[in-house]
Order: sequence, then C-alpha cells, then structure tokens
Amino acid sequence: MKQASGKSLISFAGGMPNNDLFPVKQIDEIYNSLPENIKKLCFQYGPTSGYPPLIKSLENYLKNKGLDVDDNRILITTGSLQAISIITQEFVNEGDIILTENPCFVGALSVFETYGAEVHSIPIDKDGIDIEALKSKIETLDRKPKFLYVTPNYHNPAGIIYTPERKKELLKVLSGTGIILLEDDAYSDLYFNEDEKHLTKAMKSFGVKDVEIIYTGSFSKILGPGFRLGYMLSSKEIFAKAESVKQALDACTSNFMQILANEFLAQQKLEPYLAFLRGEYLERKNLLQKHLKTYMPKEITWNEPKGGFYIWLKLPPHIKSTDIFKETVAKGVVFVTGRTFDPSSKKDDRLRLSFSNMHKEQIEKGVIILSETIKKVLENSKIAL
Amino acid sequence: MKQASGKSLISFAGGMPNNDLFPVKQIDEIYNSLPENIKKLCFQYGPTSGYPPLIKSLENYLKNKGLDVDDNRILITTGSLQAISIITQEFVNEGDIILTENPCFVGALSVFETYGAEVHSIPIDKDGIDIEALKSKIETLDRKPKFLYVTPNYHNPAGIIYTPERKKELLKVLSGTGIILLEDDAYSDLYFNEDEKHLTKAMKSFGVKDVEIIYTGSFSKILGPGFRLGYMLSSKEIFAKAESVKQALDACTSNFMQILANEFLAQQKLEPYLAFLRGEYLERKNLLQKHLKTYMPKEITWNEPKGGFYIWLKLPPHIKSTDIFKETVAKGVVFVTGRTFDPSSKKDDRLRLSFSNMHKEQIEKGVIILSETIKKVLENSKIAL
Repeated sequence: MKQASGKSLISFAGGMPNNDLFPVKQIDEIYNSLPENIKKLCFQYGPTSGYPPLIKSLENYLKNKGLDVDDNRILITTGSLQAISIITQEFVNEGDIILTENPCFVGALSVFETYGAEVHSIPIDKDGIDIEALKSKIETLDRKPKFLYVTPNYHNPAGIIYTPERKKELLKVLSGTGIILLEDDAYSDLYFNEDEKHLTKAMKSFGVKDVEIIYTGSFSKILGPGFRLGYMLSSKEIFAKAESVKQALDACTSNFMQILANEFLAQQKLEPYLAFLRGEYLERKNLLQKHLKTYMPKEITWNEPKGGFYIWLKLPPHIKSTDIFKETVAKGVVFVTGRTFDPSSKKDDRLRLSFSNMHKEQIEKGVIILSETIKKVLENSKIAL
Repeated sequence: MKQASGKSLISFAGGMPNNDLFPVKQIDEIYNSLPENIKKLCFQYGPTSGYPPLIKSLENYLKNKGLDVDDNRILITTGSLQAISIITQEFVNEGDIILTENPCFVGALSVFETYGAEVHSIPIDKDGIDIEALKSKIETLDRKPKFLYVTPNYHNPAGIIYTPERKKELLKVLSGTGIILLEDDAYSDLYFNEDEKHLTKAMKSFGVKDVEIIYTGSFSKILGPGFRLGYMLSSKEIFAKAESVKQALDACTSNFMQILANEFLAQQKLEPYLAFLRGEYLERKNLLQKHLKTYMPKEITWNEPKGGFYIWLKLPPHIKSTDIFKETVAKGVVFVTGRTFDPSSKKDDRLRLSFSNMHKEQIEKGVIILSETIKKVLENSKIAL
C-alpha cells in the first residue's frame, strides 16, 4: 500500500510543538525593539560558554527551580542534544558502559551509539525507573558505568513523571557508586496542573552530596526547537572540560538566538507564554484521552500524562506496533513505534502518541483510524490463533 | 605592568568583522518581510542536512564558483568549525595522523587536538604549501595521514593566497595517495581586486578525479559569525556518514538562522554586501600597509594581502612575538602571537595583525605603539648581544 500524501497526514509522531503555537509575535516585538548595539552583537561571535546576559537570566530561572547556580556553572549549548553529546565525549570512550531507561529518548540513544558506548537499559514503571532492576544491573556489571541517563519529568516516550520517592530512591542507589547521573529535564515547565508543579523538582536540587549530577535543559519545548538552544548545569570541574569540548564542536552557540532567548526570559515573556502553552497542551491531551476512551478496544491501555507531550499506548504482547504502523500510515495516520525507544530495537508492544504537534480537530479522526486498525490487527491475530 | 582597560584597547587580534560592518539593515528587512508560515518555520526543527531552500541557494552559489554540486552533496553545519569537527570524527581515531600547514588556523588545530590526532605540519611560503616538504613528509611517515587540512585562499594567519600552479602541484602530490584533501575556504569572496577573483578558484573545482576533496565554507565572514552557519561539500558517501555524525552533535542547525541566510542569498543581497565589504577591508588593509611602511623598523617584513583579513608580520629570528605582546598589551594594543598558529606552539617570530575588526582611525595609533615597542625590544636585544 502506498503512503497517504503528506498533505492529509494526521501525525501523532513528532515530539515538537505545533507551528501555530510558537511565540512569533513576542519574538517579533523583541527583535524590533533591540537596541542597535545589541542587534550588531547578534551577528558576532560570543564566548564559548554562552552570552553572559543569557547565562544570568538562566541563573535566575534555574534558581527559581531550586537549583544551586552558585556552586555549579552553566554552559549554553546548541540544543540540549549537544549537551548530551558533549558529556558523552567528556566521559565515554568506545566500549564504556552507559545506563539508560527503557524506553529511552531516541536522540540520546543515537548519541551514545555514535560514540560507541555499550548501552544497558533498565525498565521503568508508572512511577519511574525500576529500582531493584537498577541495583541488580549495577551489581552484575563487570565495569562501572560512566553515567545513568534519565528523563524523570514527563518522560519521552513514556509520558510518566517520577514520584518524589522514586527520585530519592534513585539517588540512594547511585550514592557512593561514582556513577554520574545525567538528568535531562526538557519538559518540566509543561505540567498541566499548578498543584503538581512541585513534582517536577529536579534531583539536582535535592542537595544530595555524594552523587555527581549533570542537569540539562532546553529551549526547544518552551520557545522553539529552531533556536537550537539548550544548556547544562554541572560542577565547575565538569564545566571546564565541557567548555573545551564545546569549543571544538562549534566554537560558540549562535549569539543571535541567545540574544532573542535572553530577552524572552529577561522581559518576563516566558511565564505568560508557558501559561498559554499549558492550556493548549492540556486541551489536546484531554481530547486525545477522551477519544481513546471512546474508540480503543478494551485490550489497549495507556497512561494519562500530567504534563509534557506523550501518551504511551500499550498493545497486547503478541501485537507489534510496527505492524500497526504499516497499516495506519497507508490511511494517513502516523506515530512512533515502540521499538524506536528500545536500545536493542526489539520491544515493540507500545506506541508513542504525541499530542503536541496536533491540530485539535484532527485528533478524533486520527484516533478512529488508529483504533480501527488496531481492532483489525487484533481480530486477525485471533483468527490466526 | 597592568593591561590597559578594555575600553581603549586597539585590537589587531580578532579574526572577525567589525560590529559596524554587519548587514543589520538587510536582515531587518528580510526578517520583517518573511511570510507568516516561513516565520513559524524559523522556530521549528529542520532536516539534519539543512533547510532545503538554503541548500538550493548554496548550490547556485557554489555552482557559480565552478563547484560540482550534482555529483556532491551539501551538508549545512553550525559554523564551518562544526564541519571540520564532523570530518575529524568521521575519519580520525586517536593517534591517527592529520597533516596541516604551518602556520595553521588555530580553531582547526584545537579540533584535531580534541580528537587526539597526531598533527604533522608543513611550512608554507608566499605561494602556498611547500611542495617538497609535503612530499618528503608523506614519504617519511610510517602511516598514511587521514587528511591534509589547508586554507588556500587568504590564509589565516599568513594572509597569502596559493598560486594556481601551487594548487595544481598540491593535487599532484596527493594524487593516488588516498590522503583526503580538506579544503577550507572561508575567505574566497573577500578578494580586493576583481581581476584576481580567478585566483580564488577552489581545488575541488579543478576536476581532478583521483584526489578525494572535502570543501568547507562559512557564512561567518560574509554575513556574520553570530549566525553559526557553515557547510561542507563532499562526495555522497562522505556526506551520508557526516550527516549521521551531525545528527548526534546537534540534530540540525538553527532553522531561524538558515532561513534568514537563505533569504540573504535568494534575494541577491549577498553580492552588493560583498562589494561594500571588499571596499571597507581594502581601505583598512591600505591604511595598515601605509602606516607599517612609515613606522616599522627596517628589520621587519610582512606580506601585502590580496584579500581576507590578515597581515603576517615577520620579526628577526631572535625576537619573540610573545615578548612584544607583553609590552604592547600594557599600552593597549593587542594582536595574536605567532606561536598560537604553530601546532607545536613554538615558532614565535611572527605576529598576526587583523585589520577586519579595526576602526580605521585607530590603525595609525596602533601601528605607532606596536612599532615603538618592536624598536625598543630590538634595541634591548642588541644591547644584550
């Protein structure tokens, strides 16, 4: 079967904001009111560590999240994927072990693979990483993993948020092992309910002394991926080496993008924009939940996310999401298959539905097509039995 | 002695355009006339290989330079330093040999060092790389170098341009050796005299079949380093691997910056801007030449560049540019010392004067301070003898 034309495609696939949600008006205002001397700076090289006023603004932003910006240093990166790449270059030689969650953000997996790391993954449940599995993995390995990479807040693709208890337990397991924790926090501003904001508290802000934590953040979900802006917060020692790796990667991140992002923060435009975004994503999440409840066969289960972009649909174990995909794509509906997020590219009984990049009016139609396809595949599998 | 305050500093140091020379007005016009749908695209992820309309525009631009864009592929990079970084990751393992010129662009040296390459450098003269030295280096090495990195047009820091004969001889030496040529061409649009434009012809456009050439270019000198935009043109095989390395480095280059740069090319704003830039740089070069002739002691020699940013001053062999620097910085004049560009950080009888980032009215004062310092150091060295 041929793929439906791009024009009519209903995409649950992309983990990015919808083009209609970007703060275009705000950035227009910012750009057009930049003083001449600052506008000229947009065109110039900047320091490798980042545009100093943006570092200042980020310090305030991170301080508000409870992070210690005095004993740590911020490095601005060309997207937070660059931060992951820098950290991997800093700590990992070919054949070294990296621990990840399973499922795991696929961008990070592709970095780890590029640098020849040996990835061992640990399952997660609805409350976070499986603590017993993590302990036993560390015990059975013959070498110390270089770091554990996790995305605790509104996990991509699983959509969950770690409970505060699970975060504490995780830190306890790592405590004293010398395994660095790489805490990727791209989604924490995108909670749906103000009352649950406290759940997004970063492990790096817990004040645990005997776990080395590198924290990464991104402007991709709160401003736009097209800015290619991220950052890492780490100890001064890790920062110093990371800065020199960054120097060799692209000399510095675009001053142009940093200056616009800095004004977005400094002029207090972020918070009202986030309020708008949260409302938009909540509405899309609610629509997707409602239609899934209406149309999905009873064998299918999923999480109800409290923030972020993702619903992680569970199929019966004998059904592969790749088989579902082959059918839906022909009918104009796409998503990302489960095995994409398995470091060993096998586990395929899940599928990731992203609601961030959806037009609201398309959601129901998309769910109907998806549900019907799943029903059909389920029935065929029963006949086959 | 203390360093003079930054405010009054006369800098011959920076290899970047002066803030007052950037095309701010043109980019203002471009930004404010972007259609709404394109402006939204600025905020979004783009393909790893680059924004398709920019690739198209670059194809036209490179075709005009005689480059074959049909049998090669363009990869957009986050500055051309990222291209050098990607190529090094693609071809070089720790301990592998890279050949460079001596002196050599220091940004490239820092990349090669970061990836643990063993750098061997070959001297250049006023016409290009020393062919006999290159031949003998290749013959005496026990392993095949992975590539030779050169900046043939308006060399940084030496300010020279390779003669067409030297370019041909270089290709002849590499022919059949399997050593890749990495041709870094950041300055070719900045010739001072239209009649000499043909001298900037890239080796990649010579049609030599048995030398694999990777060509890199940059928007840093013709639009602004703050855009962090560069590109590489290579065979399809090298492109494919490079694209996957890039994916792991920063996913894609900023769509925002790519869209503005594309309009700059597509709306034919580049050529008139280059005409303006060439005039500005020529004027600065002429002023610097004139004042050097007037004030420098006769022992000092230098090149007269035909384009680009740099004059490469030669001191008598017993005088170190680092010693001169210590004196001039206290008097508010800075430049880059010779040994910065020597891969072994030793050879120090040169200093790089960049005229691109100067205010015209500061040049004479800067040259007077520099000349007097050099005279003083020369006299002291005679007394010491």
